[in-house]
This record gives sequence, structure tokens and C-alpha cells, in this order.
Amino acid sequence: MLAEIITIGDEILIGQIVDTNSAWMAQRLNETGIRVKQISSVSDDRQHILTAFAEARNRADVILITGGLGPTKDDITKKTLAEYFGVGFKLDEGALENVKKIFARYNRPLLDVNIKQAEVPENCEVLPNNNGTAPGMWFNHEGKIYVSMPGVPHEMQYLMQESVIPKLSAAFHLPKVIHQTILTAGEGESFLAERIADIEESLPPEVKLAYLPKLGQVRLRLSGYEDKEGQLAGQIAHYINLIVERVKNVVVTIGDIPIEKAIMDKLEARGETLSVAESCTGGYISHLMTQHPGSSAVFLGGAISYAYELKESMLGVKNETLWQFGAVSEETATEMVEGALLNFKSDYAIAVTGVAGPGGGTAEKPVGTVWIAAASKTNRIVKKFTFGSKRQQNIERAAITAFTLLNTLLTDSSKSGEIV
Amino acid sequence: MLAEIITIGDEILIGQIVDTNSAWMAQRLNETGIRVKQISSVSDDRQHILTAFAEARNRADVILITGGLGPTKDDITKKTLAEYFGVGFKLDEGALENVKKIFARYNRPLLDVNIKQAEVPENCEVLPNNNGTAPGMWFNHEGKIYVSMPGVPHEMQYLMQESVIPKLSAAFHLPKVIHQTILTAGEGESFLAERIADIEESLPPEVKLAYLPKLGQVRLRLSGYEDKEGQLAGQIAHYINLIVERVKNVVVTIGDIPIEKAIMDKLEARGETLSVAESCTGGYISHLMTQHPGSSAVFLGGAISYAYELKESMLGVKNETLWQFGAVSEETATEMVEGALLNFKSDYAIAVTGVAGPGGGTAEKPVGTVWIAAASKTNRIVKKFTFGSKRQQNIERAAITAFTLLNTLLTDSSKSGEIV
Repeated sequence: MLAEIITIGDEILIGQIVDTNSAWMAQRLNETGIRVKQISSVSDDRQHILTAFAEARNRADVILITGGLGPTKDDITKKTLAEYFGVGFKLDEGALENVKKIFARYNRPLLDVNIKQAEVPENCEVLPNNNGTAPGMWFNHEGKIYVSMPGVPHEMQYLMQESVIPKLSAAFHLPKVIHQTILTAGEGESFLAERIADIEESLPPEVKLAYLPKLGQVRLRLSGYEDKEGQLAGQIAHYINLIVERVKNVVVTIGDIPIEKAIMDKLEARGETLSVAESCTGGYISHLMTQHPGSSAVFLGGAISYAYELKESMLGVKNETLWQFGAVSEETATEMVEGALLNFKSDYAIAVTGVAGPGGGTAEKPVGTVWIAAASKTNRIVKKFTFGSKRQQNIERAAITAFTLLNTLLTDSSKSGEIV
Repeated sequence: MLAEIITIGDEILIGQIVDTNSAWMAQRLNETGIRVKQISSVSDDRQHILTAFAEARNRADVILITGGLGPTKDDITKKTLAEYFGVGFKLDEGALENVKKIFARYNRPLLDVNIKQAEVPENCEVLPNNNGTAPGMWFNHEGKIYVSMPGVPHEMQYLMQESVIPKLSAAFHLPKVIHQTILTAGEGESFLAERIADIEESLPPEVKLAYLPKLGQVRLRLSGYEDKEGQLAGQIAHYINLIVERVKNVVVTIGDIPIEKAIMDKLEARGETLSVAESCTGGYISHLMTQHPGSSAVFLGGAISYAYELKESMLGVKNETLWQFGAVSEETATEMVEGALLNFKSDYAIAVTGVAGPGGGTAEKPVGTVWIAAASKTNRIVKKFTFGSKRQQNIERAAITAFTLLNTLLTDSSKSGEIV
């Protein structure tokens, strides 16, 4: 079962908005066992839309269309759908009631253009939209299903969850899709590939392995489709175990979640807390954690000690350490992480100090030089890294690497009592 | 001049990543005078990629391709391009040098798969990629231009800025586009539109005004195309001045830069410094500032006081204030901002404390309730805001609003000596 997503609207093509709808829809469709064959973004142009429909029909069984259903003149999706199917329009009483109800709720007069939103192509089955005035529209035409939805994310999401996914599940005998992801950190894609080359070779044809590298992490994703439920899940679990066993020193978690979330989950399960001392990452590590609901169970807070003075006053880094070894040094990173543990009273702490760039580099400590420390009361890792010349990337890599070191510490914490 | 963007990779079609590359590319292309006709996301599948090339060729003059250039087996873009053009491969010495340099920098052995990254289709002109091992590739084939770039955002961006945009500008006679943007904060789109309605009416047809609203800010962009350079720039400057004069109380800056950058520029020009006390924004405000080069000239650092205890120990918020009024209160926000000024010795400080959600809300202080303070030694603004129910959006809006309050304080600082 293949689907194509067509988003209609000039705002995507001029880059004014990022299309987040398609990723959301693709996730829901994949969970349901429908593979997305293509995502196409096209302009508010009649001929262009007609061509997109015709091309999609040749590729997919289900064509999901978002956008272009507003009341203004530049919204032409509905008219173009009627032309494509060769039908006229009908007024849908249910859709009209919905429009009236919404206008009554906001105490607004009902205009002609608003009533027109309840007019739909004659061959359409209306999908009620509780979150907006434009109804969803379901078409069954020459063996293909077309669904048109508004581009407003929460309206589209409502329609997908309440109508489209249930109707698609009912209409087709859908194959089961299984994804399983291993999150690794601290080893490059090609080295990982070498380490598991024989496992990859031995995969049956129905199981696919993808390498998804990003900033010092590689996600290994096994996926496949099957008809008889259960068998493939077991097979994938088997290969997941083989891979994890092989590369366990760099495995953060099994599952497709961000590294900081995986680490917070581990800490929460152990009832332990974390604080930070951020210099060159400037709040990014804290932000990564606090973007997740429930982070306060693990994350206490910390210091953004950008200036020398704040490294001393907030973290107790010694003035002579800063002047003798510099802010970017093993000694300063060590005093920062120890200061965080002491002052913020957390079980674990991470500290980062480096030259993010583009300025501030020296021959001895060029841009990209970053010292990172992770520590508990009994264990500590302090390491120097040499990243690149791009500031934003240095910040992101330093943050991910800090979590990677903390992961090593958490994984090794059985052998506690030593400073590694 | 029409372009099509083709992104290749299953990770987009399963919804694992949101395609932010296309919007970024579309913006750059539009600024250059190239209109994006379609954006297509296709799978790592030979036949599908070939079909996408053939369809794009019929719609566009320039086909920009991202993704599928990694060293692993699932990356087949390069092989498919060679098949599409009917050519073999050549080893590019420059690309090989680049791969060697990168591996030397990280002290890693060079594997065969890495050397293969320097092999390119025979008809290709290599575009140097300083940020990664996969080179950009430029093809001129039967009157159409094809460009293949890695999908890693900063590698794609480097190639676009350094090679692709300059080469496209040189290859075609592109109309000159002039943009000028006013950044406003703290007033809604429709209110702004009412205030400048007569100016908008008086614009000549060749000058277009766009309202670009985002998270409490509205960017007003004047733009136009012209052949004879100079004349339109003067006209746009004239209307920019009219609009700024009219709505100056909400203007942050002239220029298309982020609000935190505009504020840091103002502070730097005045030789003044800033610190923060972040609770519910959890480091996001600090991150926004420190992502910009040179932020250390203005930004000293601050406290991520997520836990109660850290509000007391880092900022001197009184225990009885927290228990009597709660962490989310005018009193706590005030003590936080005063504590930041005192402890971190900055000229200005901002403080944020609120309920980001989804948990933690009460009847009296529902999710989205945020107290924000901005202060100098002589002025202070403390205000309550009620944002929405989405955590990430609440964090972003609180951060932008904190900068908006600080902008008001900076704009008003001529009338100092009073606590507003």
C-alpha cells in the first residue's frame, strides 16, 4: 500500500514556512502500514495541481492532499479537484452546520465566502472538521483514494486521527511495518559499518538496515514489512540484539529518541539528578534537556558561566587555575564539573569549556578545541576534543559529546570507585 | 528561471526527520531571483530517483538534489546520476585531497569506502565541500543544470552559499531582487496593518509589502525586482523610513536579523552587558544569544535555576517568597532579575519563570502562565503572560517576549530613574 503526500501552497515554495505536516503524516501512515512513496510540494496553480494528481496516481494508491482550502481567491484546491474528477458541486448540510456553529461561537457574521466552504465536489464524502471551517474530503476514483485536508496543522491532525487513518485501516488489508532503531554515539558511520559488516551481510532480504548519522551519533534502523504478524518482529529483535552485543560500548539506547532524552530516562529510572556548567555551549545543553516534558525530575539546572568571573563565583573555579591554564583547559573543565556537583548538589554533572569560534582561537588552542567533563561523586571523565571551524556545529557537537561521555559514565558505573 | 528541489532519502518519507533544507534553499533561491516550482521528496530507490529527474526536467531549468551521498550502501544518488547521464566514474583529485585532509584532522585511517567518496560521474564539475567528505556535483546536461549536494544541512548550506548560488547568478541573467526588512515585536499583524494602512496604499506597484509574523514578532518586508540598479533601492529606503517613523515604539531594528542579535548589537554599541536568570526557558534564552559569534562581548552568562534550591542559592530568591507566592509569581520573577543584576554584575538582566507544560499547571496558574522581568539598575519591567498549551512554543514565546521587554527598556532608557 503506497501513499503520496501532496502539499499545495506557495508559502512552502518560497521557503516562508517549513513543511512539518508531511513528516507528521508520514509517521502516522508508516505506523498504519502505509508506505509514503513521495512527498510533493506544488504551487497554487491549476495546471500544476492537475499534473501532480496525475503523476501521483501512477505511483500511489492513496493520495493525501493538504492546503489550498481557505476562503480566499488564491485557494483553488477544491475547484481543481472537481475539474480533475469532472464533477460539479453540492452543498453539504453537515459542513454548513459546522461553519455556522464556528461563526456563532466567535460571534462573527457569516459571509458568502464562508458558506461556500460547505460546497464540495459531488463525488466527495465529507470528513467532519471540528477544528475549522473547511471540511475534509474523501474521494474514491478509478481505484485510487484521494483525501483533501486543510494545511493548518491541528486541523489536518484532527482529520487524520479521527477519520483518515481509521478509514484507510478499514478499507485495506494493510501489511505490518516494523521499525527498530539503535542509537549509538561516539563512533563514525563507516567504522560502525565495518564492525557489523558480517551481520549486515547476513540480513534476510525482507529486513533493511539504514545508517542515519548526525553530529557524532549514528542511528541504526532495521525495518521491514510482513503479512503474518509476529515473525518479522522476532527476526528484527534478533538482529537488534546481535548488533547491540557487537557494538555495545557505543550504544546509548534502543529506540528512536534523542540522546539527552535517553540519558534523562536512565537517570530517572535510577532516581538520580544532573546539573551542568556550560561555557562555550552557552545554554544549549540545558535547553536540549528542558525541552522535554518532565525534565525537572532529573535536571536541577546549572551555570552558564560565559565570563571568567562567573566561572569563579558560580562554580568556584580558582582564579589561579584560569590564569595559569586558561579557561579552555583540563584543569578548568575539572574544577567546573566538581563545582557543579558541589554547588548544585546533583548526582551527576557535565561541564563544557572551549573555543566555539569563529574568533578566540590561538595556535595552541585553535577554534574547535573543547574540553568536556562528566562526573559523579566517584567517577570522572575529562577529555579534549577538536571539532571544526563552524560555531553552531561546535556547540551542537560539544553538547552531544557531553551526553556521550555521560553515557559512558553511566554505562561504566558498575565499576565505580575510580576516576577514569 | 524555475528550479525544482529533490530530496532523496527514506528518513524523510518515514517522517523521521522534518525537511528543513528545502525551505532554506527556497529562501536563498528566491532572493537570487529563481522561483521554486516544486519540491519532491523521493526514496533511496534507483527507478524512483530516475523518474523524479525526468519529471523535474520537464518542469524546471535547475534541479537541485540533496541527500543520498553518504559512504554506505543505502546511498545511491551518485550511482543513479551516472546512470541517468549515461556516463562512468572518474576519481577527482581535489575531492580526494579533501577526504584525506578531513581524516588526517581527526586522526582516522582512510577506508576504501571513504576514498570512493572522491569518485564522481565523468560529466561532473566538482564543487568543493569544506564541511564534509562528499563533494558537491554540478552537471550541465541537455540545457538543464543539475546540482547534487549532501543532505547534511551545514554541508548543503556551505555548498549553496559558496558555489551554487554564485554559479547560478553568473550562468543566468537574473533580475535583481531587493529586500529590506523591519523587525517589530510586541504588536500583532492586523494591528500593525491598520497603523500603516495608508502607507501600504501609497506603495508603487513595483514595491511589495509582506507581513511575516512569528512568535510575537512581525517582520515587515519590502521587496521588488528591477533592471536599472539604484532607483528601487532608494524608493524602498523611503518607505522603510515612513513605516519606522509610524510604528517606532515596536521597532526592534531595520534588517532581517533575529531579535536577540539586534538587542546584543544595541548593547554592544552602548558598551553594556547582560545576564539571565532562566527557569522555564531552561537555557533557551542563553542559547539564542551564544549561538552568535562575539556574544561574549555582551553576554556574561547566568543561572538556569530549574530547581527551587538553585533559585535560592544562585539568585538569592528568598525561601519565604517561593513558599508564599510560588515560583511562578511577580515576586519571584522580580527577585530573580534583581539577583542576576547583583550576583552577575551586568548592566541589564532578564528573568523568566513560568509553567511551560504539559504538566505543572493549576487552576490559578494554568500551563502557559509565565512571568517575565527585564531590569537595569534604574528601570524594571515585570509582566505576566498567558501563552498556550504547547511546551516548546511556550519556551520560544517566553524567550522572544523577554527580548521584547528588554527592547522596550532599552528604547525607554533615556527616561531613566524610574521603575516602570
